[in-house]
Order: sequence, then structure tokens, then C-alpha cells
Amino acid sequence: MIFHYPNGKPYQPKAQVEQKKQKTLTYSNRGMILEDDLNETNKYYLENNLAVIHKKPTPVQIVNVDYPRRSAAVIKEAYFKQSSTTDYNGIYRGKYIDFEAKETKNKTSFPLQNFHEHQIVHMENVLHQGGICFVILSAFNEIYFLEAQHLLTFWKRQEAGGRKSFTYNELIEIGYKIPLGYQARIDYLKIIDKLYF
Amino acid sequence: MIFHYPNGKPYQPKAQVEQKKQKTLTYSNRGMILEDDLNETNKYYLENNLAVIHKKPTPVQIVNVDYPRRSAAVIKEAYFKQSSTTDYNGIYRGKYIDFEAKETKNKTSFPLQNFHEHQIVHMENVLHQGGICFVILSAFNEIYFLEAQHLLTFWKRQEAGGRKSFTYNELIEIGYKIPLGYQARIDYLKIIDKLYF
Repeated sequence: MIFHYPNGKPYQPKAQVEQKKQKTLTYSNRGMILEDDLNETNKYYLENNLAVIHKKPTPVQIVNVDYPRRSAAVIKEAYFKQSSTTDYNGIYRGKYIDFEAKETKNKTSFPLQNFHEHQIVHMENVLHQGGICFVILSAFNEIYFLEAQHLLTFWKRQEAGGRKSFTYNELIEIGYKIPLGYQARIDYLKIIDKLYF
Repeated sequence: MIFHYPNGKPYQPKAQVEQKKQKTLTYSNRGMILEDDLNETNKYYLENNLAVIHKKPTPVQIVNVDYPRRSAAVIKEAYFKQSSTTDYNGIYRGKYIDFEAKETKNKTSFPLQNFHEHQIVHMENVLHQGGICFVILSAFNEIYFLEAQHLLTFWKRQEAGGRKSFTYNELIEIGYKIPLGYQARIDYLKIIDKLYF
């Protein structure tokens, strides 16, 4: 038997509602919130003295600044610049951490055009110096951790005339799924603990 | 005897001119070129596979963007934001590097108001994670390398009601002079080699 509220809506036990909410907490229709979740995660890491990892500011070429008062300069003309590095870096347990976050709506593969040549070269340089470098991917309704060396392999395959993406099957074989957490939304340090310590 | 050119200017042997140029190559009247020299230095390090260290972009709060064509978005209104970290970070020989660069025109002391509370807290966090953290100072006609722990000591002295700066004598006692170089203008990795390897 189903109970109805005065407004005609059927009654649902609270537990059931919670469960439903839980279920929709995937990355299927979440759009651009990957960055927000990573910022929240990094904030949690910082506040709990676990790691010091920040997103770099968006690089902007400032052309014209108005100074009505010195304390409130207004940028009147500026342009987005292409970054020469990845977006996130910092330190964890003495080690240099460096990563890029990207998402795709594609259902079967992850297009390499999400990455710029500059970023790929940067990742190579970081690996050369002994840093921990990876990408966090929002794809196929999940979040994945993929070590940079694998991304570089896919990139080189493309340069050699191969496919311009890597497939879902390739990703699940060498990537690591990051389960969505509560305090640390995208708890990538857990993967790093497993792989590098 | 002094020779004169037809325009009346006295002749100077070339060597003497070079020497004069050399002499003015101090940081006395060089204004805001500390940042340029550090960027050049980091570029040299990067191109020679010595280190991967970048200046972070200036943080900007973007309020209004005009999209006349998608390829040329114009930022029409934006504001400078205070950074929550230091300006430079990266990796060198497997170690996390983090620093801030500041200058003063003061002749006898370096004012602590050049640093923000945020940056001080960030430096503490980096040291806690085992990173190499320091400041590069343009002061008293020289460039100095000062380890963050010493800056933190000066900062705490100020918080305890002490002086709002550290003196020239204090700096030369615990800081390291960085001689101006040719290829790497401000070759701070040499100091790091000595202190941490």
C-alpha cells in the first residue's frame, strides 16, 4: 500500500530517498564539477595536513588595467593563454605530485585531443625528474587514475599514425578506478599510497 | 691625451666600456626585473633538463567574458586575487621545490610586509611535507637565498611583538648570496645542491 501526501505525492521512507540520492551520485550527468570536486579534495588534504596540492590559476594575458583607486584595479582587457604545464601540482609525503584532470562524454573512448602537446612534454619532464605524474579522468560514468607514462604511450601511438584516443577497455586495464568518497571526494592519494609507497 | 669623435664625444677603448657595463649589472637600479631573471633561469633549467620549475600565473577573478568568436574570447572585467601559495614551484632531482621572490629598496632591513600571511602558512605546510622551501630576495644590491624556516622565525618574532623586518646583518649571517650568472642568471640550484644533496 502506498501513502500519499495531501499534494498527491506518494510517501517514500527516508532511507529509500537517501539510497536514490546515493545512486545518482555518479559522474554521468555531472558536467563540469570534476574541478570543484578536486578542489574540495585538495582542500580536505590541506586542512588535515595530508598533502599540499593546489590548482594553478588560469593563465591570462593582461592587456589593459584600469586603476580607479589603487585598492581596486579593474582588468579591462585580457585574454586566455595556453598553459605550459598541467593544472595541479604540489607535495605529498616528500614527493612531488603533478597531474591534469580531464573529462569526456564519449561512451567508448577517451580522445587525446583533450591534452595539449605542451602538457605532454611537461609530463615527460616531470617523470624525468622523478616526480609522480598522472591524469585524473572523468569518463564512462567513473573517475579514473591513469599514470602519465601510459598516457605518453597512447600519445606516441597517435604520433606514429595510430588512433587518436584510447579505448574504455585499454583504460580499465591499466587505470585505477577512484571511488567517490565523502570527505575526500576524489581520494587519489589512496592510489598513490598503493603505487608509490 | 683623449681622442674625440667628430660629434665631440670622447673616445673610449672598448674594454673600458664593457667593464662599465659589467659594473652596472647589479640589482641596485634594476627595478622589477627580478621576475624576468628568474623566469629566464627557470627556462634555462628546463631546456637543459636540470629542473622543472615554473612561476604560477597571477590569480585573477574573471567576472565578464565577451565571445565575439569562440577562438578569441576577450575578458572584459576581472580582478586581481590574492594568491594562497608562493609564486614558484616544481621539481629538482626528485625533490619538491617551492619559493617566493621579493625585493626591497630599503638600505638596512627587509620589511616583512612583503609577505602575506597566506604565503607564510603555505611555507609551513610545505616544510611539514618535507619540501625544499625558501625565498629569493633582491636587497642591498645583491640576490640572496634564505631558507623558509628562517623567514618563519622572523615572522614569529614579529607576531610576538618584535621588529617588522629583518636586518641586513641578520640576512648575511644566515642567507646565501647568489652571484649573477650568465646562462642561469640567478643560479639558485647551486645553493640547493650545497644545502640539500
